[in-house]
Amino acid sequence: MDAVDGEPGTVRPGGRTARVRESVLRAAGDALVEQGFDGLDLADVARRAEVGKTTVYRRWSTTAGLVADLLTDMAEQSEPRSDTGSLDEDLRANARLVVRTLTDARQGPLFAAVVAAANCDRRTAEALHRFYAVRIEEWAGCVDAAAGRGELPPGTDAREVIRAVSAPLYYRLLASGDPLDETVADRAAAAAAVAARAGVYVS
Amino acid sequence: MDAVDGEPGTVRPGGRTARVRESVLRAAGDALVEQGFDGLDLADVARRAEVGKTTVYRRWSTTAGLVADLLTDMAEQSEPRSDTGSLDEDLRANARLVVRTLTDARQGPLFAAVVAAANCDRRTAEALHRFYAVRIEEWAGCVDAAAGRGELPPGTDAREVIRAVSAPLYYRLLASGDPLDETVADRAAAAAAVAARAGVYVS
Repeated sequence: MDAVDGEPGTVRPGGRTARVRESVLRAAGDALVEQGFDGLDLADVARRAEVGKTTVYRRWSTTAGLVADLLTDMAEQSEPRSDTGSLDEDLRANARLVVRTLTDARQGPLFAAVVAAANCDRRTAEALHRFYAVRIEEWAGCVDAAAGRGELPPGTDAREVIRAVSAPLYYRLLASGDPLDETVADRAAAAAAVAARAGVYVS
Repeated sequence: MDAVDGEPGTVRPGGRTARVRESVLRAAGDALVEQGFDGLDLADVARRAEVGKTTVYRRWSTTAGLVADLLTDMAEQSEPRSDTGSLDEDLRANARLVVRTLTDARQGPLFAAVVAAANCDRRTAEALHRFYAVRIEEWAGCVDAAAGRGELPPGTDAREVIRAVSAPLYYRLLASGDPLDETVADRAAAAAAVAARAGVYVS
């Protein structure tokens, strides 16, 4: 029996199944960046990944299923939050990581493509929202830690502070088109920290 | 000579040209909401608008040209900024207007569709960025007025404050999928006002 047929829990990291998944998801990302969601085709992804078409169809079924798995992988691969002991520094590290990602030659267009794809397909939208839920939850730890140190008012909604850090950066990428750089990152982090200390995010 | 051939400056408001443009842009918006940018077709738009196909091809040439004109029209149609004499109230009015727009049954999907379209097409992206530049400039007047009243530190970047109000709202619509409501709007406005007073947006 092909290991690809195994349940997710039975996949051995580094085994054949994991290597196939890695190749296919990389190819899917490349295809998304080059052609967008509407140009995505399972046979083309299989060819790019040098994996049998049947394997790709059997494991992912649809392009929406493939993009959903790509987003799951992106959430799993993403870096753990920082833990500097200072809210300002942690939020700055978060904002700078987001800017590095969104200005990366591959990751930036990939994020724009999955956001566009989410607009066309409900299942992709759900996967995108899960991706952000995972990332927001990871970094919310910085805010909870700061609240624990007494840096923030009790009842501060940690996830809302993290959303506030990312929002101005995504707004520039997806809506206004204004440039993204470290100054913009640091300003987003500073604004979120000031508003959090003032109690704006107490729920 | 068909009035449709006239230069933009020669269009009489309320005349035949204006009525044709209004019908075609409304049909283009409907088609975008229903089918997305990739499903947009000039002949289909002409049929929906009950306007001759030749007129549509002659005036707009391409779907990208049509979406660019739709965005120009959206910028022209949008409401003028508020002027309450209070920065907090003006920013709250701005945030609530954005939430009303993005949660509107037609406007919300339309914005998501044009953002997705901008990812596929450079000309559409330029038109989208111009749309936001116009809206940001309009509302920046509230911030400049507040600075004039001494409510904000000198050198505050008014446009950056307005971007900060909109950003958390677009982030929810386009990325995280978290709900949009008046509470979220008021929090976005309060955060921008607090950060602006603290000098975060001094450039």
